[in-house]
Amino acid sequence: MADAPAAGPAATLPVAVDAMGGDKAPGEIVAGARQAADEGIEVVLVGPPELIGDPAGLPVVACTEVVEMHEDAGQAVRRKKDSSLVRAAELVRDGKASAMVSAGNTGATMASALLRMGRLRGVTRPCIATPLPRLGREPAVLVDAGANAECTSAMLVQFAKMGAAYASARYGIPDPSVALLSIGEEPSKGTPVVKETHAALAGGAGVRFVGNVEGRDLLPSPADVVVTDGFTGNVTLKALEGSLRFIVETLFAVFGTDASTIAASEALLPHLVPIAAELDPENTGGAMLLGVDGVCVISHGSSSATAMHNAVRVAHELAEAGLVARLAEAVGGT
Amino acid sequence: MADAPAAGPAATLPVAVDAMGGDKAPGEIVAGARQAADEGIEVVLVGPPELIGDPAGLPVVACTEVVEMHEDAGQAVRRKKDSSLVRAAELVRDGKASAMVSAGNTGATMASALLRMGRLRGVTRPCIATPLPRLGREPAVLVDAGANAECTSAMLVQFAKMGAAYASARYGIPDPSVALLSIGEEPSKGTPVVKETHAALAGGAGVRFVGNVEGRDLLPSPADVVVTDGFTGNVTLKALEGSLRFIVETLFAVFGTDASTIAASEALLPHLVPIAAELDPENTGGAMLLGVDGVCVISHGSSSATAMHNAVRVAHELAEAGLVARLAEAVGGT
Repeated sequence: MADAPAAGPAATLPVAVDAMGGDKAPGEIVAGARQAADEGIEVVLVGPPELIGDPAGLPVVACTEVVEMHEDAGQAVRRKKDSSLVRAAELVRDGKASAMVSAGNTGATMASALLRMGRLRGVTRPCIATPLPRLGREPAVLVDAGANAECTSAMLVQFAKMGAAYASARYGIPDPSVALLSIGEEPSKGTPVVKETHAALAGGAGVRFVGNVEGRDLLPSPADVVVTDGFTGNVTLKALEGSLRFIVETLFAVFGTDASTIAASEALLPHLVPIAAELDPENTGGAMLLGVDGVCVISHGSSSATAMHNAVRVAHELAEAGLVARLAEAVGGT
Repeated sequence: MADAPAAGPAATLPVAVDAMGGDKAPGEIVAGARQAADEGIEVVLVGPPELIGDPAGLPVVACTEVVEMHEDAGQAVRRKKDSSLVRAAELVRDGKASAMVSAGNTGATMASALLRMGRLRGVTRPCIATPLPRLGREPAVLVDAGANAECTSAMLVQFAKMGAAYASARYGIPDPSVALLSIGEEPSKGTPVVKETHAALAGGAGVRFVGNVEGRDLLPSPADVVVTDGFTGNVTLKALEGSLRFIVETLFAVFGTDASTIAASEALLPHLVPIAAELDPENTGGAMLLGVDGVCVISHGSSSATAMHNAVRVAHELAEAGLVARLAEAVGGT
């Protein structure tokens, strides 16, 4: 779609990439941005030119500061007004970029987006949406994956609406099914907030609610959207990532045991590699901050060039798909 | 130790097995109890004789009722006073059994144990401890794995103490390290309850606190005990179980692809089977209810004879190791 000028002015705005965000910045970040540009997506790097080094032919919006990975998010954003993160968010706010992407400090990315772009009207709190892989089909979406450690049921209902709008915009699912994460299928299971949320969603909140799911249902998820608070979501998502990494490491150790297992691994790897690729967070395009007035992709801190390339593509596609307007419409239906 | 009468009167008491609890009751339950008896552990079955059928030569304490898997726990225990679950708990209370084991309705098992055995003095709420496998060494312990959906920091501190005493009694870890599950390593991360718990544990609560861990640290856990509320614990544990099951199913599908992968699977399976066995909840002896005045093992609802055999062995060993006295001592130190 980037080749079709008829798609309107949004198609010509670049994606703002925080060149200094992530464990592998700026090298892998710039390389990934370059790959996206090579596919026809407009990209602008944001960062101190002397730290970026070679921008690989991409335009640079210069700034003087960088938010480090472990800085306090609120303080960093307040103090470092000329940081790459804050400037990237301002480019979106000012209509100079269609979206921002960062693999840096997650809290500071959220704070920059929230403070500079502002909340969408009607949104109580933004949330993070993360893909849950489902082999051979579009991923499910987990909301909230970590923006809000504590949530009210009203917030969770809003996350459900935004999650459904996002699943629809990103994966083309027409009327996404929405489930609530709990400790049993019965409406009576869970914390008071979870029970209240179940009642609200079952009572007709404008999403296709299919009831509670449990932790064991997340991989693969039967529902297109799984709603939970940001504490449970973050712990659970990292637990899934950790267990997959553990299994891969365990398998590779077995593969190297002796000549027969090395031969076996050669027969299996062509089958396993595509599965691993589908499960790899590097390939899913990162998490999305929903509920701010702009597109903001939060990539994994360990993002490689491939991960950044995917994140930029997703950011571009969602800006083109009018994600923000669709979220506003979903929440306005409250 | 069951062969050593010198070990004292506790050694001669049988383990009370709820013959009617679990998806595979009574067949697999009785078979597993029989296997434990064959190794020298005294066992008594509890249940309606006409439903148990052949007790495989084991003594039976007869009752007339059974709590079904999906009954409301509180109601079931109040109404079915002559159920196998309630009677098993009474055998422990009355000094006629050293421990109880059930693979039935988890909520009703907790309620039976709590109402009939009572809480240990000083315990606010009992919690469920579940093993987290660590290949090649003793498992870590997750508390609370689902007894309390909502927790105060005082409860979490008590779970930490009971979890440490349990890790020590069950796995012989002399001074277990204790971590708090959160969404970042910093003390400032998490819900208000988690932050308060971090401060209390770091301030010297009588356990060796090593700080926060994240979801990705659970498999394998660097800490011997991981503390969390029962909602997060239950969701996370089931997420880990679900992801392992998902990977195993995916691997088996790949193994069956063609002649070369079938040959490869034959080379790998001898290496993979022992790992799968270590990860399999069937082999870990079940979850333990900590904080009631008696030993109560809660087995997985899908328990096979092997799982029940292990659960009975663990119940017997922990009764002999004086688990309840050790928990009382740990909590009394508040």
